[in-house]
Order: sequence, then C-alpha cells, then structure tokens
Amino acid sequence: MKKLVLAYSGGLDTSYCAKHLSENGYEVHAVSVNTGGFSKEEIKNIEQKALALGASSYTSLDAVQTFYDKVVKYLIYGNVLKNNTYPLSVSAERIVQAIEIVNFAKENKAQYIAHGSTGAGNDQVRFDMIFQILAPEIEIITPIRDNKLSRQEEIDFLKSKGVNMEWEKAKYSINKGLWGTSVGGDETLTSHLSLPNEAYPSQLENMGSQKIKLSFTKGELTAIDGKKDKAINLIEKLDKIASSFAIGRDIHVGDTIIGIKGRVGFEAAAPMVIIKAHHTLEKHVLTKWQQQHKDYLANWYGMLLHEGNYLDEVMRNIEAFLTDAQKNVTGDVWVTLFPYRFFVDGIKSDHDLMNAKFGSYGEMNKGWSADEAKGFIKINANAAKIHQAVNNK
Amino acid sequence: MKKLVLAYSGGLDTSYCAKHLSENGYEVHAVSVNTGGFSKEEIKNIEQKALALGASSYTSLDAVQTFYDKVVKYLIYGNVLKNNTYPLSVSAERIVQAIEIVNFAKENKAQYIAHGSTGAGNDQVRFDMIFQILAPEIEIITPIRDNKLSRQEEIDFLKSKGVNMEWEKAKYSINKGLWGTSVGGDETLTSHLSLPNEAYPSQLENMGSQKIKLSFTKGELTAIDGKKDKAINLIEKLDKIASSFAIGRDIHVGDTIIGIKGRVGFEAAAPMVIIKAHHTLEKHVLTKWQQQHKDYLANWYGMLLHEGNYLDEVMRNIEAFLTDAQKNVTGDVWVTLFPYRFFVDGIKSDHDLMNAKFGSYGEMNKGWSADEAKGFIKINANAAKIHQAVNNK
Amino acid sequence: MKKLVLAYSGGLDTSYCAKHLSENGYEVHAVSVNTGGFSKEEIKNIEQKALALGASSYTSLDAVQTFYDKVVKYLIYGNVLKNNTYPLSVSAERIVQAIEIVNFAKENKAQYIAHGSTGAGNDQVRFDMIFQILAPEIEIITPIRDNKLSRQEEIDFLKSKGVNMEWEKAKYSINKGLWGTSVGGDETLTSHLSLPNEAYPSQLENMGSQKIKLSFTKGELTAIDGKKDKAINLIEKLDKIASSFAIGRDIHVGDTIIGIKGRVGFEAAAPMVIIKAHHTLEKHVLTKWQQQHKDYLANWYGMLLHEGNYLDEVMRNIEAFLTDAQKNVTGDVWVTLFPYRFFVDGIKSDHDLMNAKFGSYGEMNKGWSADEAKGFIKINANAAKIHQAVNNK
Amino acid sequence: MKKLVLAYSGGLDTSYCAKHLSENGYEVHAVSVNTGGFSKEEIKNIEQKALALGASSYTSLDAVQTFYDKVVKYLIYGNVLKNNTYPLSVSAERIVQAIEIVNFAKENKAQYIAHGSTGAGNDQVRFDMIFQILAPEIEIITPIRDNKLSRQEEIDFLKSKGVNMEWEKAKYSINKGLWGTSVGGDETLTSHLSLPNEAYPSQLENMGSQKIKLSFTKGELTAIDGKKDKAINLIEKLDKIASSFAIGRDIHVGDTIIGIKGRVGFEAAAPMVIIKAHHTLEKHVLTKWQQQHKDYLANWYGMLLHEGNYLDEVMRNIEAFLTDAQKNVTGDVWVTLFPYRFFVDGIKSDHDLMNAKFGSYGEMNKGWSADEAKGFIKINANAAKIHQAVNNK
Repeated sequence: MKKLVLAYSGGLDTSYCAKHLSENGYEVHAVSVNTGGFSKEEIKNIEQKALALGASSYTSLDAVQTFYDKVVKYLIYGNVLKNNTYPLSVSAERIVQAIEIVNFAKENKAQYIAHGSTGAGNDQVRFDMIFQILAPEIEIITPIRDNKLSRQEEIDFLKSKGVNMEWEKAKYSINKGLWGTSVGGDETLTSHLSLPNEAYPSQLENMGSQKIKLSFTKGELTAIDGKKDKAINLIEKLDKIASSFAIGRDIHVGDTIIGIKGRVGFEAAAPMVIIKAHHTLEKHVLTKWQQQHKDYLANWYGMLLHEGNYLDEVMRNIEAFLTDAQKNVTGDVWVTLFPYRFFVDGIKSDHDLMNAKFGSYGEMNKGWSADEAKGFIKINANAAKIHQAVNNK
Repeated sequence: MKKLVLAYSGGLDTSYCAKHLSENGYEVHAVSVNTGGFSKEEIKNIEQKALALGASSYTSLDAVQTFYDKVVKYLIYGNVLKNNTYPLSVSAERIVQAIEIVNFAKENKAQYIAHGSTGAGNDQVRFDMIFQILAPEIEIITPIRDNKLSRQEEIDFLKSKGVNMEWEKAKYSINKGLWGTSVGGDETLTSHLSLPNEAYPSQLENMGSQKIKLSFTKGELTAIDGKKDKAINLIEKLDKIASSFAIGRDIHVGDTIIGIKGRVGFEAAAPMVIIKAHHTLEKHVLTKWQQQHKDYLANWYGMLLHEGNYLDEVMRNIEAFLTDAQKNVTGDVWVTLFPYRFFVDGIKSDHDLMNAKFGSYGEMNKGWSADEAKGFIKINANAAKIHQAVNNK
Repeated sequence: MKKLVLAYSGGLDTSYCAKHLSENGYEVHAVSVNTGGFSKEEIKNIEQKALALGASSYTSLDAVQTFYDKVVKYLIYGNVLKNNTYPLSVSAERIVQAIEIVNFAKENKAQYIAHGSTGAGNDQVRFDMIFQILAPEIEIITPIRDNKLSRQEEIDFLKSKGVNMEWEKAKYSINKGLWGTSVGGDETLTSHLSLPNEAYPSQLENMGSQKIKLSFTKGELTAIDGKKDKAINLIEKLDKIASSFAIGRDIHVGDTIIGIKGRVGFEAAAPMVIIKAHHTLEKHVLTKWQQQHKDYLANWYGMLLHEGNYLDEVMRNIEAFLTDAQKNVTGDVWVTLFPYRFFVDGIKSDHDLMNAKFGSYGEMNKGWSADEAKGFIKINANAAKIHQAVNNK
Repeated sequence: MKKLVLAYSGGLDTSYCAKHLSENGYEVHAVSVNTGGFSKEEIKNIEQKALALGASSYTSLDAVQTFYDKVVKYLIYGNVLKNNTYPLSVSAERIVQAIEIVNFAKENKAQYIAHGSTGAGNDQVRFDMIFQILAPEIEIITPIRDNKLSRQEEIDFLKSKGVNMEWEKAKYSINKGLWGTSVGGDETLTSHLSLPNEAYPSQLENMGSQKIKLSFTKGELTAIDGKKDKAINLIEKLDKIASSFAIGRDIHVGDTIIGIKGRVGFEAAAPMVIIKAHHTLEKHVLTKWQQQHKDYLANWYGMLLHEGNYLDEVMRNIEAFLTDAQKNVTGDVWVTLFPYRFFVDGIKSDHDLMNAKFGSYGEMNKGWSADEAKGFIKINANAAKIHQAVNNK
C-alpha cells in the first residue's frame, strides 16, 4: 500500500485530505507538529478527528524547543521584524513543521507526503521546498492546491462519505504559535480596512501598568523578574502577561514568495516586547559597526526564512555571525507594560558601553581636549572639503 | 574690527558667547535659525537678549521650508529611523542651521563664526564640518568648548559684566523643531532610568481616539483629512493633533560621532505617524526589491546625516534614488490616534500592487495553475537540493 | 491565421522553429535583433534562410544604440562584473532583444511569440519574463524546450521537409554582441578544463604594445585618442584594437536563474578595458561613500539584470542613482595594451580629488597639524578604547 | 629613566627617532616586527644600526605566522581586494605590527611607544589606534610627525651627532611583506604617470608558461602541486614562482583614513593568484547567497582593516561568518602562469555544485520538465507583471 504522511491540523482542508486520500488507496499517517499553538486537549481532539477520517495513525510531534533552537533564537539575536513590522510568526513555524514532518516521513519510510496548502500562498512553497530538498525521493501530494476546491465542495465530499463534523467557518482564521499569532479575515483581503478589536484572540484584561525585568544572557532570555527558566517557558510566560495588555497587534502587508502582496493581521505580544528589549540592550553593548552589519544580515535572515530558503547554507553562516555577536549581550532590561503598548525604560549591563568614566554625551569631555575634538573634526571634514574646493569653485 | 557671526539660541551658553566675544574685540552678529521650534514671541525675546548682551545685530533666519526641502523630505521618503528608533530630529536640524549660518556669514563677509557647543557632543562636529567645508576661509570660534566652562562660571562672568538675566537651569533640556523634540535630563545620563511623564513637553489631553486620513503625493504629505496644504504646515498641524494624544515618545541610545554612546529622550508625534503611514503605503506600492534597496540606502542616509556628512556627494546620489522611488507613492492612509499610540488602519492607492484581480493571498490563485506553482517551487528548490545532494550524502 | 513572431537567429534551433511552426498553422514572422554581433552580410544570410524555411516575413531590428542606452551605459556607470568576473555580455543582450521583439509583436498585433531556448538555461527565463510582463495577452511558444529535441532530430525533421541546409555543429558555440562574446564548448561543461586558444574568436595579432587614451564625459566614453564619436562606435573601435591583443578572455562559473551552476568562456576586450579605465577614473573623482554605495547598487543591478528582472522598478531607481553619481566622472584615462592583458597607467581630470594642494599621501600634511592628526586619531579610537576597557579588564 | 619601545625599521625616519630619543632622556628599546619582508641578514643589519644609534636593546619579533592567523587567512577567505584592486598588503601588516609592538611594550613595562610615521598617511592612524586601544596608559611619541622634519634635516641631525651612515634616498620606496609589496615613487604622487618597469622589485625571469595546482582545504591553501606545507610557506613559495613571471603588478588610488586620496603601486604575485584561485573554487562550491553576503562582509572587513578598525568587535563577528562559510571550500585549482599574467583554468572539488547529474546549463534539463520551467518563470514574473498592469495601463 502507498504509505503517506499527512501534515494534519484538524481544519477542513487537511480533514478533506485525510478522508480523500485514505479513500484513494493511501495509508494515511496524520501528523501534527506543535510549535507552540496547541494545548493537550486540542491535540486529543485532532487525534480523534484524524482517526475518524480514516487515518491509519496519528502522531503529535512536540517541536517547541526545536522551533526555538533552530529559528526563534536567531530571530531574537537579529531583532528580526520583516519590513520593520512582522516578527515572521507563521513563516518561521512552517519551516520547522516541514522539517519535522519530512524527518518523520523518512524515518517511517513513507513514499508520499501530503499537505493542505492552496496554490496562492507562501506555505506551499515553504513545505514543498523543505520536503524536496531533504527528501527528493518522496512524492508530494496536495489535493487542495490541485483541485482548487471550495469549502463547500470539501464539506459536501465529507458529508457524502458520512463524515458529519461541524465545519463552521470561523470569521477570522487564526494561526497560533510560540512566536505569535496571525489573524486573517475579510478585512485583510482589502487594503484599507483594519481588523476589529474582536478579531484578535487576546483581549485587554489589564487596565493598569506593570513593570517587568527581562534578563538576557548572551542574547537569550534567561529570566523574568529574576526568575530563571528555559527560554521557551519564559516566552510563553511573558506572552501571557503582555497579552493581558493586548500588546503586539499590527497589520502587515508583505511580498509573498509568489510575487503577489499579502496582508495579515497579527498579535505577537512576547515577540514584540522581547525584540525591542533585546535591541535596546544591544544598542548599549554593541559597537556601531556590529549593529550596522548585524542589521544587514538579520534583515536577510528574515527575508530568506520568509521565502523558504532556511536550508540555504548561507543561513548557517549568518547564524555563526549572529551567535558570535551575542557574546556581550548580557544584562537586564526594564519594560513597562500598558494597555496596547509598552515602553522600554532602561537597561543595566556589565558590558554597557555608555559609561560616564569616558565622558558624558553633550556634557563633559573627560577623555579628550577641545583641541583634540577640533583636530578630529577638521580631518573628518577633509574629504568633503577637498570635494567642495575641486568641484564648486 | 573682527566681524563674527554667532549661532545664537538665547540660552546661557550662547549668551555667554555673545557677551564674551563682544567684550573681546569682535563685532558680534547674532543669528538664530528657526527650523520649526520658535514662535514669533520667542524670536522677539531672543533678539532683545542678543542686543542687550552686546551684539551689533540680530537676525532670525526662517529655515523651516529649507529644512523640509533639504532634509525632512528625504527622511520621509526613506522612512528614516536611526537604529529603528529615532527620527533624527536634532541631527537633521543642525545641518540646515549650519548651512544657513555659513551662508549668512559669507554673504555678510564675516571672518569668524562662533557657536556654543561643548566638546562632548555631536553638534560641534556637525557645525564645524559644514562651516569648514563651505567656508574654509572663515575661522571657527568656540568659547564653551575651549574653556570647558561650568554653568556657574558662565553666570558669574555675565553678572560681573552687569548682565542680570535669569538663568535657571530647566530640569530637562528641550530642543524643539519641525521634526521632533529631544529631551535630556538626569535620567538620560544613566542607562537604566526612564524619563518621567512630566519631562515630555506635550501631555495627554485627549483620552478618546481620532481617525485621520493622510494623503501622500509622490511620497510627500499633501493633505490631512482631505485638506490640502504645504507639507510643513501639514506636519505642524498633525503634530498638534497627535501631540494631544502624547504620541511619539521614546528614548534612544545611539553612537555619537565621537565614539561614545549617548542617550536621549524624544517626542516626535508627527514624524512617527508620518513615517509609519508612509511606510505602509510604500509596502503596498513598491516592489520587494525597491523596498530592500531603499531601506539600505535610507539607513545610510540617516547614518551619514547623523554624523555630519550631509555634504558628501553620495547624499545627492541617494536623494536621486529616493526621489525616483517615490513616483508611485501616491495614495491615502488612514491612521487612528489613541492615547500614547496610534494604529495604521489601511491605505487606498491607484498604485496598490495588492490587487485581487491577480489573486488573493492564501485564497485563490487566479493567475496561475497548481502545476505552475509546483514548477515554480521545484526549480526554486534546485540550488539547495543540489547542495544537499552534494554535501550531505 | 495565427500570427506569430519568431525570435530568429539563423541557427539550427530557431530554423527548426521556423519550419515547424509554419508547417503547423502559424504565420511566422521571423525577427532578429542586432545588439552588435551581426554584419550586414550575416543579416542578409539570415533573411534568406528565414524565408526559405517558410517565414512569411523577415525583419532585422537594429538595437545597438538601444542596447547601449538601456543597459550598457549603466553597466559602465556601475563597473558591473558579475562575481567580479563577467561583464554580463549575453545576459544584457537578451533583455534588449526580448524588449525589441515584444514591441514588434505588439505593433504587428501578433498573437504568439516563439523562441528557441531550451529548458535548461537562463535565456528562456529572460525571454519569457519580458514577454509576459510587457504583453501578458500574447502566448509564448517554445518548441525546443517543449519537445527536448536533439540536434539530430531537428536536422532529420528539416530534411524530411526538404530543407537541405548545412547544420554542422561548430566546435564552440559563440554569441557575439556589443558588450562581449560568450564561448561554450565541451570544456565549459566540465569544471576543470580550460578553453583552448582556438576556441576564442579573436586571436593575437599584435605582439607589441599600444598606449591609448580613453576620454569619459559624465561616465560615458566620448573619445579615443582624442577622436570623439558616439559611444557605440567607440566601443566597437576599441574592441577591434584590444581584440588584436587577445585581451579580455576569461571563464566564468555562475549561478543560473534556475538554480544550477553554469560555466561559460568569454572574450570581452572593450568591456574589460572600459570598465577598468572607468573605475580608475572614478577612484580619483568619487568620494569613498559614493564608491561604497555605488558598488552595492551596481552589484545588485548586475544580479537583477542577469536574472531577468530588468523591468523591476528598482532598476529605474538604481539607474537614477548611477546617473547622478556620474556628474563628475569626466576625464582622460591612459591604458597600455599588451598581448593578452592591459594596464591602466593613469588619469587626468578636473575633478581629481587627489590634489597636492591639500597634502600628499604619506609625505606632507599641508592642511592640518600633527596635533590635529593626533586629535583625529584619538577620538577615532574612542569607541574601541571604551569597548576594550569595558570588556577586557 | 623613561622606558620607550621604538617601532624600528632601519630606515632614516626611525633611525632619527632612535638617536633623537636616546639623546633626550629615553631608554630606547628598538623593535622590528617581521611580517614577511625581512631576511635574517637584513635583521642583523637593522640590529647593528639600532644599537649604533643608541638603542639600549634591539628585538626582532617574527610575526609571519601571527600575521597569517590574524589577518591574511581572512583576507583569503573573503577574497579581499580593496576597491576591487589592492590586496591591502601594507594595511594588513601594520595592524599586526602594531599589536606585536604594544604587547612587547606592555610585557616590558614601557611607558612610551614611538613610531616614525608622518602626519600625512594611514600608518599613523593604524599605529596610534591599536596602541591607544590596547594600552591607553602608554604615551605615544612621534618625532617625525611632530616636527615635520625633511630628510635633510634628519640627516643633518644624525651627522651632528656623529652618525655617519649612508642615507641615500632610494628612487622608489618599497614595503615588502608576506601579502605583497608596495611601491611608491615620484610617479605615484601624480595621477597620470605609471611606474616604470624597473620600479617593481621583481622582474620578468620566465618567458614561458607554467601550470600549477593549488589545493585548498576549508579555504586555506594547503598544497602546491600536491606538496603539502604550512600556508605561510606555500604563500612564500608561490610568490617566488609567480614573481618570476612578474605577475601581480598594479597601481591603486584609494581613500586614506585622513580623507585625502593616496596612490600606490604594488606587486602582489601570490596574493593575486591565491585570491582568484580561491574565488573560482568558491564560485563552484558556495551558493549564490553565500557569495552575495560573503562579498558584502568581506568588502567591509577590508574597509575596516584598512582604516585601522581591526579591533572593532565586528571584525570577530565577520571572521566567524567567513570561517563558517569555508566549510566546503576544499578542492584543487589549476592556474597557468604567463609573463605578467595568469589564467585560472579550472577546479575539482567533491563539493562542486556544478554537477551534470542535475542538468547541464543550456543543454539539457534532467531534473525538471519544460512545463515546470514555464511555471517557474510565470510565477517569477508575477510581481513585475502586476506592477506593469497597475502602473502602465
């Protein structure tokens, strides 16, 4: 029999796939990869659904730590916000999900991998690319893309096969993971409409303010308010706190891999707070040139990740740079959370390069004389002075 | 007699210069350059002070439009935020002030230019560089930098000369201009303290929310809520509205030109709203590569401007790129203002590249088939697939 | 009848297309675009062939000047050498050929455009992309790519149709144009073999040396040895001279658009001499930052051109930068040609920033004192000094 | 007594320093750092001179291996040619010389370091910066810069002190090291004159041609013609061979750190051959994006090194990237040497990504179909197609 691994989420598209493929001669092994979005209960539900739809087996792979180690860590090191806006929540998850699935398929000697992406998005590219690169011998099956099915056609098919589940379309499609939640709806299909308040999964619960201390060690979040824990636990903990302030909402319009523009709402409380806190710490401990070239590389890291090029060898090279650049990124950052926003108050670090011993900006030059400053400026002006004299006589 | 032009602000440092220099054989012509911070009344006061301190003449140069034409316009085109934070409010002003002053000095055949900067900041570099490049024949006089005078010494000198003005030190030093207000205080001399609410010149007056429409034409702000006006008027108008929401506050720590880190608070309501609105519009109308390379150049435009290299010829080349890239940046942007924050709701533009005619992201691929998408992805994966096959066998 | 424009070169592949398509219901209008490689006699031959093969019409479009205006000029402004090696001879031509062909097809209301590219190269991408972007309504027909025909199959088909032309396979496939000649052969299909001397179209005729003077005006070549002429004439003239020294040979291995590596020999006498001469002049007249950012953009200009993205709007923005940066690139450059190599001797320009009035490198500092130099260096060292003190105690 | 370490080369300037300083109350410890230019005999001569001029001690530090480990290795990894021309021979040496000297001074508890640079060059910046950063407590003494002495004044002083050495000015000033030799003369003080043949230290001895095989292991040169040796020995060996062909001559005009342009001739046989060979190997084994971002960083590595910023922490981060990117840069490169030039013939590597198994460029697409290629191109064209449709209707 034709052994097939199906990337299964429990939604209508992948449920259609599960039924359709198991009816068409495939031995369907449903797999879901948890990168931070699923509770135990949800996983239980997904399992029951998968088996009810004809899957031969169901496996839930816990990839939260892997997700952090392979991708999220570097997104923090690089303060990566796509187009200065979006923390790449979904883009980043898909990569790790694809790697987990293809590894599972190889270990289980599957001949096929199926996924439920349409032909109009980024996910198909990310999935297919990772699958093909890591397992060129496995064939990829994509019924939704191939048949351009409407929701109704999928529901009708399932009903005709005796599947009587509820497939109410949620008003907003939500994708939740460790590094943020994306929100799509009718509004995001336009350019001019904003998402209503209720579209966001987290709602304002906390009307006051709360000051927290984030501690970083070599670029990684290692404690909140002095309590040490694993980074993934701290991210989840912070997300809970900051989400109660409804922090981290925005709408991004970006360039898809397939050349069209795509618009997506998101809520990313922990990512936004961590990135700005980490960035502020870096502004104190890194040199100007470290920041400059780190930004250049991190921007590209985000671009290549977004476009499914995670396996390009340059990503490993960039990771080597980013890791090396975190050597001194150790210290505490104070952040105050308010309804819908936050403010980075300040930092403390043994590596802080803003250090009154060497002079205070604008106040007093302890380390050099007025004449030295004048010499500096004069010679700094040489090139433009010569250019002016030569070209504007 | 030795004719000298003094960059005069009415503060203690430049008042010391006015008195000190006019007592020491210089014919002092005090000049202040308005780049958006001064009211008519303030200018009147500055004039009276200057003359009382012994200046032979006082001139107020209105450079708001020049400031916009020479610098602010390009900062908007480039969405320039230094280190992704600071709109370069002061850095940008100083450049234009220096150019205005040196032109005034040349027209008036002055042999000297004086300014009141210390030896520990960026301003001395910006002033000296522009002066030397555009008028290498004029000598620069900097009594504060040369003598490292304390406030008390300056006050004592003035008193000894019969000047009985009030020189109370404001708790926070404020620098206001068209493109934002900087705020320095005891807290910004530390790394960990935040500025208190009262340090910011604008205070929250508006507890509700307000939706506004910003219209851009080829990258320039040309109307607010449909009312057309000159860009500088619109910036001032928007600043008034958004400041009543206390929008645009942050603290930046940056690399000074002289190698130390400097920390500064700022309030930049209009700049932050305009930049994010303009950027959102650009995300809809520019191609991926336009955004990528525009960001690279704009980042450098900010860096070079910040460091006083405005006269480097490359700045003109970058301006040519930025201007060309604004051809299609025409459209409306809706923004909702809230207390301390704002949200860009959406845009409308004839040049919007997000256009359902060509397919909707993630929903339906109208312009291509599933097979075409698969071909795209397959060949897109070629390079990494070969790398994998060659190196990970 | 189905009106079709065929990009026709006179070679076996496009001859097959001409016959095959005219036999299959198409009204074939053969068009060749001269970007510098064809003599009048060759064009005559191509015409006769086309008509003999059943084409309804034949048109030769002279695009040498267009080629220069649209592409070559900017490759010179940018000193573009792909991977620091290859002047993009063929890549650049294809773009202009595609534009000329699609414009011809639109003017003549053709419903189809055909070309003879295989499915394994860059040219198919360049052609298809330009055609689709500028005329999405025209269908693209590619018999060679679709049928993966071997040379023998093509010859057999033509013979079966009574075409008795000679189709001897040249040992080396040559593509000649204004901006260089590419050379492919059995050796370039390997990684380790070099092309033999005889593979290159030009052979050493000149054993001595010759000193020439190239004059540039705002970045464009405007005279050789003082004789002014149009740039395209000067390029051709220089190519003749420099080719007699067998200058400009090399082998490039590059990344194709389709993800595989491709290796190609080339001979580009004029391009290599012009680029190095122009670059040397620029090193004298441009500031450090102009060179830095020009290099960045020019590198990308080459990359995007190579990959068929000539119509991306960012290319126009880059052209605006490059043009602006050529304002002062006016002067004379002396070059000595030797067998197989050349040497740029020196330059003369009114815009030369190397100017003894301001000090001679390493010899004498006329414009500043020792103390000023020391002040400059001291403050230049500040950042690293602080970093060292903070982190290496 | 005031303990002073003098960077001593045996030339007139540093000899003046040795005499002058030992006459003025300093205990002069002369130190020369060999980065590849000195023979044992030359070192013996330098020692005798130093002691004769009053130095209390003389030490020759052998830093050839250190020079390679700290700098040259990364210049090869990065294929660094400043402005695509100059292998940074002298810039690179000075850095390592400065580090060796300051370490020697610290170990020997010197209170002063002296060097013989003028105030008009780059070397003063490189020396002073490294000294100040690594030993801010040590004072820097620069008699030549401070007194702007002419050669004659220096000679007269030495004569007056009874020093009767010969100080004939060589027609060309030569600086020789492991990574190339710089050549300055009257011609390089102009913009238009080339250096005569005899200015270059190596002369053509070999009129034929010679094919050699360079073997690289993870980016480092590890064998020539199959004979393994340490990299520094191989560089010296290759330099001897290639210099006999008078390979590697050129003239560079560059931007000095002090803002003026400087022109210098150089001869760098081994560096030019190694860099082009290494680069060719990389073009076969690295992905497009690795090359792209490696070039960006390597260019900056060269810029920062040139300007004396070797100790900026970003240099360590870039080294981490470059090292990581060399993982697969292992293979053989064949190069043919000719009089005054060389040709890289080809490479062989287990990591070669040009691999006929996956398809041959332009010939046959084995890994994909015509339809897949068409799908790829179609979707690749999407963005520009939409842009065209939206903006050029």
